[in-house]
Amino acid sequence: MKALYYAQANQDKFLAELKEFLTIPSVSTQPEHKPDIERAAAWLWDKLLTAGFPKAEVMPTPGHPVIYAEWLAAGAEAPTVLIYGHYDVQPPDPLEMWDTPPFEPTIVGDDLFCRGASDDKGQLYVHVKAVEAFKETAGAPPINIKCIFEGEEESGSPSLNPFIREHTGMLAADVAVISDTSILGKELPSIVYALRGIAYVEVEVTGPDHDLHSGSYGGAVHNPINALCAMIARLQDEDGRITIPGFYDKVRELDPEERAELAKAPFEREAWLHEAGVKTDWGEPAYTIVERTTARPTLDVNGIWGGYIQPGAKTVLPSKAFAKISMRLVPDQEPAEITQLIRNHLTEIAPPTVSVEVRDLHGGDGAIVRRDSPAMKAAFRAYAEAFGKEPVFIREGGSIPVVAAFQKVLGIETILMGFGLPDDRLHAPNEKFHLPNFYKGIETVLHFMDFLGE
Amino acid sequence: MKALYYAQANQDKFLAELKEFLTIPSVSTQPEHKPDIERAAAWLWDKLLTAGFPKAEVMPTPGHPVIYAEWLAAGAEAPTVLIYGHYDVQPPDPLEMWDTPPFEPTIVGDDLFCRGASDDKGQLYVHVKAVEAFKETAGAPPINIKCIFEGEEESGSPSLNPFIREHTGMLAADVAVISDTSILGKELPSIVYALRGIAYVEVEVTGPDHDLHSGSYGGAVHNPINALCAMIARLQDEDGRITIPGFYDKVRELDPEERAELAKAPFEREAWLHEAGVKTDWGEPAYTIVERTTARPTLDVNGIWGGYIQPGAKTVLPSKAFAKISMRLVPDQEPAEITQLIRNHLTEIAPPTVSVEVRDLHGGDGAIVRRDSPAMKAAFRAYAEAFGKEPVFIREGGSIPVVAAFQKVLGIETILMGFGLPDDRLHAPNEKFHLPNFYKGIETVLHFMDFLGE
Repeated sequence: MKALYYAQANQDKFLAELKEFLTIPSVSTQPEHKPDIERAAAWLWDKLLTAGFPKAEVMPTPGHPVIYAEWLAAGAEAPTVLIYGHYDVQPPDPLEMWDTPPFEPTIVGDDLFCRGASDDKGQLYVHVKAVEAFKETAGAPPINIKCIFEGEEESGSPSLNPFIREHTGMLAADVAVISDTSILGKELPSIVYALRGIAYVEVEVTGPDHDLHSGSYGGAVHNPINALCAMIARLQDEDGRITIPGFYDKVRELDPEERAELAKAPFEREAWLHEAGVKTDWGEPAYTIVERTTARPTLDVNGIWGGYIQPGAKTVLPSKAFAKISMRLVPDQEPAEITQLIRNHLTEIAPPTVSVEVRDLHGGDGAIVRRDSPAMKAAFRAYAEAFGKEPVFIREGGSIPVVAAFQKVLGIETILMGFGLPDDRLHAPNEKFHLPNFYKGIETVLHFMDFLGE
Repeated sequence: MKALYYAQANQDKFLAELKEFLTIPSVSTQPEHKPDIERAAAWLWDKLLTAGFPKAEVMPTPGHPVIYAEWLAAGAEAPTVLIYGHYDVQPPDPLEMWDTPPFEPTIVGDDLFCRGASDDKGQLYVHVKAVEAFKETAGAPPINIKCIFEGEEESGSPSLNPFIREHTGMLAADVAVISDTSILGKELPSIVYALRGIAYVEVEVTGPDHDLHSGSYGGAVHNPINALCAMIARLQDEDGRITIPGFYDKVRELDPEERAELAKAPFEREAWLHEAGVKTDWGEPAYTIVERTTARPTLDVNGIWGGYIQPGAKTVLPSKAFAKISMRLVPDQEPAEITQLIRNHLTEIAPPTVSVEVRDLHGGDGAIVRRDSPAMKAAFRAYAEAFGKEPVFIREGGSIPVVAAFQKVLGIETILMGFGLPDDRLHAPNEKFHLPNFYKGIETVLHFMDFLGE
């Protein structure tokens, strides 16, 4: 396949372009970065045209724009693949923990450090460059291709589902492909067949209606920080089992067969502890670390704040305390239902001395896809070719709610064709993308399209 | 007494000067305000000279300077009073909750709104103007006067105790006077005879050594925010009783006689709830609100932070979580001992999946003074003259550690001659000083010095 040679010969050019993409701080959750989001969208649109897509559009939404592109040169008989990615990134905080500036792409060894390098600009760009390789060698890809790249993934994709529902004809395809997950290791290709869902809330606890002096009122006015901590402590037990009534009612338990299959994937406890940066693991004793992080629901406080948080000592009894709490969900938990359960529970356990408000920040469904479809088989073979080793099937702990949307609205399954690594530090300081995976990713996609077009 | 007429005739001038003093943002805990601290010290030094003190000095310390002044014209037979105050103020956060800019003195009705208006610039300035009134009428005060004004009270007075120990001769006096407390109400003069001590710690809980993606690691890595909340929840029970082992061992219990005396002070539950801005009170059921806030030890989280605290949703499992925790202490609890108890307890209850560090931010002893000394009797009569009503004896919930230092190092008792009001919003947004109390305060001090000089 000539496209492979083109891809190998143009690695430096591809890398230079990716670095340009990464310098744009397209943080979707922070309003001050709106111009950067627009700049990133325009940049990507231009690159899609260059890659050969005869049609590419920046389409407005109530939030950040969606980029749509299509190249349907393979004819009605050939399969159509819908490629999804996101050009927005997580905020870079905490800034002081980055070894290099978060939006200055920096190569150290084989790794490219930058916010968004792995999640998801680098992985998204793999597909753009694969299509370009077909254009420059075969003239066009061997299958029909549609792309949908959004700019709101890191803020819960509020505009995406309505967009999909309004454009079902335009987006019609046989299968979707997303590269926004990790493989198990550099030499350990893997395919994610299940994702967790998410329910994310913000909790506001109000005590007195203004800040008080803790020396004058402490002891007779309930401190909302103390109250919030006590409430959070009542959301799970010491082993991480969630104590919200009804939380586990709809959890589809793992059967022994799937547990055995999951146990096949190589897992090194010491390496995992090192990657996580912890001395020991934690969580439900009846489940393995892999199961806890991919096939079991969880609850994490992602942020907490209240009172005086500057240097020094201030004796304030604050009016308010806040927490951001997310729960990862597994089939068949529904985000809206879980959000209601935690709201009910927090309201019920809130002492009468404070008031509590629970705001729904966002929710997303989990998903499980078949491992025996033609597209999955093509993906399996493509990894084996590009990485020289057959991939294993795994579950992923994170959430890509669009997978559920594709299933529900478009009626198609998604192949999660990830090229990240477990130590890519997604959402954290010093995020990186392993450059050999960038290049092997392009080759995997070339093989995948080639096999699917056979 | 002619000085009274001078004070009454010069109220506008005194107010204009106080407003000038208040515009200086002398926040002692924030290093960027160091120049403001120095400006406030220089301003006050100048006003002491103007008030007639033949000697006034800005004396350096390892931290912010102490201002010392003396006027010993009354002769060796006359008593010597040591007046203490502080010219530093609390940080103004949260800024968005102020109705007027925190360092622009603003008069609304009879109240002067500004950070430091009541705590302690306004109350300190009462004494400077009283001395000026004697100078301009009688030529000199009827007693010997020494002043010590510090700039570190709101950050735990780290330099003050060493300063007092190094200048015992210079500071020698018969009694100390401090105006840094409140009376019960506009028409309810009162004298504080007991203060609570304080132990203030900062707690740092570390989970993983870097921030993680909660979707990838949640469920198998212990989240330090969840862990911190669970630990804080184990510091007290639902009624506010502190569950740190040994915490109450040295508490001197209130005897029935003192409880009966405390109950004599007028207390209106509805008015208190309104001032505090709460619908209901909270705390140890066996004690009254007054006892809980003045004669019982307490524990408050003054600040908490960790993870993502900007708008929007970020699915981070953070490396660290922090809390600032203060405990108000009563006789005979020792701050250093209590700090050690909470450190031991937190270390013991910390799960093995996280590490915890407890830093001592500051501590201060409480105090109880006699109600039958000559100075206390003079103070009692002075309030009665200026306010037209006899004061009642009360305890105060806050901490003024210098009272213990004066007792231990100089061997003198302190008269807490407060002129604040319970709704002055000390340490909170919209702090204010009731202007009639500023003027009556000056008159009270004039009477006090006059009676003491008899």
